[in-house]
Amino acid sequence: MTAARRGRPGYDLDSLLDKAVAVFTERGFDGASMEDLSRRLGITKSAIYHHVESKDQLLALALDRALDELSAVVDEAEVLPLPAIERLEFVLRGSVRVLVEQLPFVTLLVRVRGNTPVERRALARRRDLDRRVGALVSLAAAEGDVRPDLDPVITSRLLFGMVNSLTEWLKLRGGTDSAALADAVCKMAFNGLQVAHD
Amino acid sequence: MTAARRGRPGYDLDSLLDKAVAVFTERGFDGASMEDLSRRLGITKSAIYHHVESKDQLLALALDRALDELSAVVDEAEVLPLPAIERLEFVLRGSVRVLVEQLPFVTLLVRVRGNTPVERRALARRRDLDRRVGALVSLAAAEGDVRPDLDPVITSRLLFGMVNSLTEWLKLRGGTDSAALADAVCKMAFNGLQVAHD
Repeated sequence: MTAARRGRPGYDLDSLLDKAVAVFTERGFDGASMEDLSRRLGITKSAIYHHVESKDQLLALALDRALDELSAVVDEAEVLPLPAIERLEFVLRGSVRVLVEQLPFVTLLVRVRGNTPVERRALARRRDLDRRVGALVSLAAAEGDVRPDLDPVITSRLLFGMVNSLTEWLKLRGGTDSAALADAVCKMAFNGLQVAHD
Repeated sequence: MTAARRGRPGYDLDSLLDKAVAVFTERGFDGASMEDLSRRLGITKSAIYHHVESKDQLLALALDRALDELSAVVDEAEVLPLPAIERLEFVLRGSVRVLVEQLPFVTLLVRVRGNTPVERRALARRRDLDRRVGALVSLAAAEGDVRPDLDPVITSRLLFGMVNSLTEWLKLRGGTDSAALADAVCKMAFNGLQVAHD
């Protein structure tokens, strides 16, 4: 594959992947054919097959790009020498940053339903991230910084639910400052929207 | 259509819709053919066409079922003689209840991408709900119950993002108590997960 990649000026695997993900998110993965991709790229189908074996392999590479970046955020959070609540904040801010920087890839990821082995592998990786973030929620509760009456797994799901809901929102609005969005998510997640009246 | 409906014992439009939505959420709307539906229902395609004109009309009816129920919750909240913060809570609890009771219909709704006129109409109705809930957030801020530093539109998106994230989660777990889930969402939304240390 390396030789073929060298031999196709204009499209290396990364830029092929960028275009493919754009087509997948527009038409849906099932609705997008290799013909659609070849038209959009302006190259023949066989030129695409010089890079990848199948449309499924393109999907696997695209989902791994999003999952690798999100996993890297959680990996880093897990070894930070900080209280768990601050490591949770690191995860939330990092996830929003990855979402903004890799929007089409994360959009593809959050739409995965588990209909194929490639999709099921991606869902398993997402569940593993949920579980690891749930462990941070539990730890923060044990450290006295998170209310103990919250179910860590549901809480982790709701946190990612907030972050992921931004994919469709960003598609409509675009150009939003990632740090400002991360602030909004963290305020809601940590302090809630209600003013405390004591 | 009424005569045809009477003439088809076993399947009225509602039970046809239930089965159709199950097939759509399993295979994706684009991936599900009228053949798939007819096999699943054990009736001919022409028997299906006695009820509806097209697969698109089935989708429109299914999306309207979810949207009508969610709109009814917001309609009711808007006229409750209560502070806006309590009307927001009513919206959140009502949305979780609709999600649990109409899970396949809401799942279909949150997956809509806007690729067809039917899907775009559903997205417009969802945006209208976002806007109306955003107005409740603004009102609650004006009443001094919601922190004024939150953007009402982003806040409304994050609230529905939390609620909607429960669709995929419920599909995996099932059988969860709707009131307990609503409690988890309300705690996170109103008070956040952090313990206040003063």
